[in-house]
Amino acid sequence: MTTVAHTFVDRRRRLAEALTGARLDALAVAHLPNVRYLTGFTGSNAVLLLAGRKATLYTDPRYTLQARQECDIPVRIIARGPLWSGVASEIGRRGWRSVGLEASHVSHQQWQSVAQALGRTVRLKDASGLVEKLRMVKDAGEIAAIRASVQLAAKAFGKAIRKARAGMTELALAAEIDHQMRLLGAEGPAFETIVAGGERSALPHARPTARQIAPNQILLVDMGASLNGYMSDMTRVVHLGPPTVEARRLYDAVLEAQLAAIAAVVPGVTVGDVDAAARGTLRKRRFDRLFTHSTGHGLGLEIHEGPRLGKLAQERLEPGMVVTIEPGAYQEGFGGVRIEDTVLVTPTGVEVLTPTSKEFLEIPL
Amino acid sequence: MTTVAHTFVDRRRRLAEALTGARLDALAVAHLPNVRYLTGFTGSNAVLLLAGRKATLYTDPRYTLQARQECDIPVRIIARGPLWSGVASEIGRRGWRSVGLEASHVSHQQWQSVAQALGRTVRLKDASGLVEKLRMVKDAGEIAAIRASVQLAAKAFGKAIRKARAGMTELALAAEIDHQMRLLGAEGPAFETIVAGGERSALPHARPTARQIAPNQILLVDMGASLNGYMSDMTRVVHLGPPTVEARRLYDAVLEAQLAAIAAVVPGVTVGDVDAAARGTLRKRRFDRLFTHSTGHGLGLEIHEGPRLGKLAQERLEPGMVVTIEPGAYQEGFGGVRIEDTVLVTPTGVEVLTPTSKEFLEIPL
Repeated sequence: MTTVAHTFVDRRRRLAEALTGARLDALAVAHLPNVRYLTGFTGSNAVLLLAGRKATLYTDPRYTLQARQECDIPVRIIARGPLWSGVASEIGRRGWRSVGLEASHVSHQQWQSVAQALGRTVRLKDASGLVEKLRMVKDAGEIAAIRASVQLAAKAFGKAIRKARAGMTELALAAEIDHQMRLLGAEGPAFETIVAGGERSALPHARPTARQIAPNQILLVDMGASLNGYMSDMTRVVHLGPPTVEARRLYDAVLEAQLAAIAAVVPGVTVGDVDAAARGTLRKRRFDRLFTHSTGHGLGLEIHEGPRLGKLAQERLEPGMVVTIEPGAYQEGFGGVRIEDTVLVTPTGVEVLTPTSKEFLEIPL
Repeated sequence: MTTVAHTFVDRRRRLAEALTGARLDALAVAHLPNVRYLTGFTGSNAVLLLAGRKATLYTDPRYTLQARQECDIPVRIIARGPLWSGVASEIGRRGWRSVGLEASHVSHQQWQSVAQALGRTVRLKDASGLVEKLRMVKDAGEIAAIRASVQLAAKAFGKAIRKARAGMTELALAAEIDHQMRLLGAEGPAFETIVAGGERSALPHARPTARQIAPNQILLVDMGASLNGYMSDMTRVVHLGPPTVEARRLYDAVLEAQLAAIAAVVPGVTVGDVDAAARGTLRKRRFDRLFTHSTGHGLGLEIHEGPRLGKLAQERLEPGMVVTIEPGAYQEGFGGVRIEDTVLVTPTGVEVLTPTSKEFLEIPL
């Protein structure tokens, strides 16, 4: 328990430094993954108010017991009305002049009501992204949590894919995957599991449908778990029956690009260079025009976090960042291949967390 | 198809009347359930711009095909940058003076960027709740969709509860319920399924844990499905082994209150009177202090919609409203009982949609 509490103290200390840098007397954090990161609180309604080393969690009576169990900081229960009213009166009492709010996560209505309650003496500033920036580099506990989530998802994939067969609907296989994740202890899927057969695999954001998985086609599965609040994300493509020459060519090209991008991951490299490694490899096979999205994204308490591994992006990788590497190539009317691992940036390079084989798996007919 | 399109045309026509009433030249709808209600679009990123009889959907390239298939209105694809930039330039071009935005659903950052793009000639007004107000009264298609969702959830409950037994964890039973809903065709649970045994059933918002379901205790299950976007919500309490006198007394009191509240449902009654029917019945047994929440809520495209059936609330029920009736009584350290049906307000009274028996079910040990 001491270690855990220490983690939160440490995170809040680093945030306090960022507040000083941003010339903020205090910060009100409303985005729940940010609140969880800074306090451990897992409820669905909270505002965290921070100033220097002091932090107070505001929540409602449903969470009285839970907040006190989960948090190492004072908890204020707001029995009536919005939490913001309690937060605003505290800000007023303290005489702070410059207070940060996350304008990207707070509704305009909430912002206005806080501004009105505070009057002209307090200046509200947009503090969007301050906490997210800290969250980009994971500490040891977070890396362990993501590792467990990645392993759980891989295990569920292995169990579910053994049941995949021609005639099964995409929805049934997605349900089986989600059920396996739950049985292994996940809260649920990290996002809506994608199971897309044949030409539907060419849609990068396909939702599973009632269509049957057909023989002699590509089958794409993109899935992840939420385990103790931490996400995982993996994509594998299998083939129902022996892969055709065309499917094999697409698969090999994407795999080569994925391995090239992983090989490019090292502290100090720009994320744009990692993306370029994937894109350049596909270009050699003239598949680069079929790669219509970015190479990956960070993950942690949310499925999409910084950094985004986009074309020309200049952010630099640091040890402790956890990102997906997921190039793809999508041939309209035929199908698509995407191969995705979750990887950890280490002090010397990269560790691929996803244990699942990247052989082009053939499902027997 | 004609009928479906007609539904959306009709909903937008009623909204156009509300806009006139609110003196708005146009409305930009960002809340996704509202967008879906008005257009049928089911994607995860959209803004709907409405003015009089004209409506345009803004979305991103992921949804090009899907938006054109689902919507009967023009679709604009914004390939780069936020959708709001496209919406703002259209507003600017049209010369509208007074434009509504949903301040409760739009982030302060988005609101500010739209306001900045539009300059001083356009007045942005908070139009929160305009669409939600229309959505409170369901049309025939929605009632059919909710009915199907309610029946699916009830069927899944029946299948899963047969597998419940002492020694099973709460999480495993919750996973079984969710899996049954998926196998029956649901997109997923309408909310995180609650399975709470023994004294944990006294927490109205308990999350399922790794604790084993124990014999000679109350077991509370609160669950619902999302089916074709429409939600259901039901709560049943069963007993592991023969109910004790104390459990039976609590159960009978809550059931009596639930039946009294259902009997109070009739067009024109205030929701506060329905709540009072439940609360008054519990008072006779001196259990009213154990009933710590409101009697119910509307549901539809969201699990919580208006009207809320709260103490003293003055809203009146209308035919076509669909609400939950869910009084409860929670005895700390012992356990809680909540019994919840989804009901439809009919022209003459009420129809209970939930088909599941309200006998105090005993799970054999």
